[in-house]
Amino acid sequence: MTVLVFLDPAHPDGRIADAGVPALLATDQGVTRGDGIFETLLAVNGAPRKVQAHLGRLAASAQSLSLDVPGEEAWLRAIATAVGAFASASPPAPDEDGNTNVVVKLIATRGPEGAGSPTSWVQATAVPPALAEQRAHGLAVILLDRGYDSTVAQRAPWLLLGAKTLSYAVNMAALRHAHAQGADDVIFTSSDGHVLEGPTSSVLLAHLKDDGGAPVKRLITPSLDSGILPGTTQGALFTAAKAAGWELGYGPLVPADLLDADAVWLVSSIRLLAPVNSIDGTEIGTAEVRARLTAELSALLAQTH
Amino acid sequence: MTVLVFLDPAHPDGRIADAGVPALLATDQGVTRGDGIFETLLAVNGAPRKVQAHLGRLAASAQSLSLDVPGEEAWLRAIATAVGAFASASPPAPDEDGNTNVVVKLIATRGPEGAGSPTSWVQATAVPPALAEQRAHGLAVILLDRGYDSTVAQRAPWLLLGAKTLSYAVNMAALRHAHAQGADDVIFTSSDGHVLEGPTSSVLLAHLKDDGGAPVKRLITPSLDSGILPGTTQGALFTAAKAAGWELGYGPLVPADLLDADAVWLVSSIRLLAPVNSIDGTEIGTAEVRARLTAELSALLAQTH
Repeated sequence: MTVLVFLDPAHPDGRIADAGVPALLATDQGVTRGDGIFETLLAVNGAPRKVQAHLGRLAASAQSLSLDVPGEEAWLRAIATAVGAFASASPPAPDEDGNTNVVVKLIATRGPEGAGSPTSWVQATAVPPALAEQRAHGLAVILLDRGYDSTVAQRAPWLLLGAKTLSYAVNMAALRHAHAQGADDVIFTSSDGHVLEGPTSSVLLAHLKDDGGAPVKRLITPSLDSGILPGTTQGALFTAAKAAGWELGYGPLVPADLLDADAVWLVSSIRLLAPVNSIDGTEIGTAEVRARLTAELSALLAQTH
Repeated sequence: MTVLVFLDPAHPDGRIADAGVPALLATDQGVTRGDGIFETLLAVNGAPRKVQAHLGRLAASAQSLSLDVPGEEAWLRAIATAVGAFASASPPAPDEDGNTNVVVKLIATRGPEGAGSPTSWVQATAVPPALAEQRAHGLAVILLDRGYDSTVAQRAPWLLLGAKTLSYAVNMAALRHAHAQGADDVIFTSSDGHVLEGPTSSVLLAHLKDDGGAPVKRLITPSLDSGILPGTTQGALFTAAKAAGWELGYGPLVPADLLDADAVWLVSSIRLLAPVNSIDGTEIGTAEVRARLTAELSALLAQTH
């Protein structure tokens, strides 16, 4: 079940479209050039989570691509329409906590060639069951070179490294490469050996220290200036973790930092916190610590909005 | 005027679709992930040029992306249908040589999420008038860092550097960056300083040598192992130039080689040979030599198929 709602000035709440019927022109530059942007967020019990963070990142991506997208009000109304229509048409079963979840994707393309106006829509779908599996059982991850060095984002804005574009063919190819090797997912590294992000996720790691004084729990993520996407889930979790007494840290990180960690996660708005069991075959921490920290941080994340 | 012909097992010659009516599902991974491939070729007097080279490169791109696309016969029939329908609907005016030209684009995406079958179509359109301008008047070009080093393509196949994918957002952003600086186009360089290619073209350069012995004319292009797309126009022109007495050379090339050249061109199947007047503000050769060599090589290219 997929609900589509197109942003359309003639329909202030968005125009619902049948997802089984073609809705895009074949000349749309979203498809002919991968020229557009997107966001994916979770709606819990009908309320889109971290919606301002997602709309803010969408606006930043639009600016990187010189794309003139609709304003926040139009997106918010279309999201509400899509989530409402999805709940009516295909009420999601409550999760283990009694919440209902819907995946909400926002897409804006440069529109048909020559038209000069973007095509923008919201899509609502069910949460893929595989993600709960990933949270429960963890991931085998491989490291893959992303080809860029960790300084290029700053000096080459045309590479769009901080923008969430529709040009995801490399991200998808990296995931296929991992699956062909029997792994579940990927952590990209820069050509100069820094840890970056996953193809569809941010990377977090935890270091615990208990040297006789007060125990210290540290949550760390690669620094943004290495050319990664600012993670909305990472951001929300950092705020919550800090309030709960965690120390926060920001890269540069190298693969050895991952292997030394007590736990590593791939995090995203839909997947939430998926623990990494192994990287290139080396186990990260212990199953007991991974499970305990995943439960602790997942509980913190669930309290964010 | 755009003619669309979808490859469809129920229609051996392809299924003509109205380009003004939505033809793609909004869940097609061509748009949601830029996950697909394309080729652009020229049909002259109804005959697609270098069609085997384009179909061969399409097949190679499909293999890089593990994409199961229709076979050559289906593409050839759909191309013939599209070119024929375009000629009937909107007969192109003959060019300066009395030929009629049609732009033919082949696109294959991974298809709608969950469907497991690609979406494939052929698009026929008129040649943009700007391209004849570019051939006649030449281009102001800037060099931009592509971010990748010249060896990464070999060791990181998931970066899809030799594949012509739909994920062209960076190519489009680089062109916008050039236009914002008052330039017409871009030549990408690798992070280790090698000349690569344009966002939608191959790079060629000519060196003339006349040291008292027999004059030598040398045509040079960056080597493929630097992670560039194999140019079908470059390939056809090299064959024709060799037969006409030119020496051929293959990079590695550095920007100084471009600035030292007697002429530099951006070449592609639709644009053909567009001379580069200047790179980062430095004139390449002289207007007289650029014009003479452009005429000579364009005549050779016109004889290829």
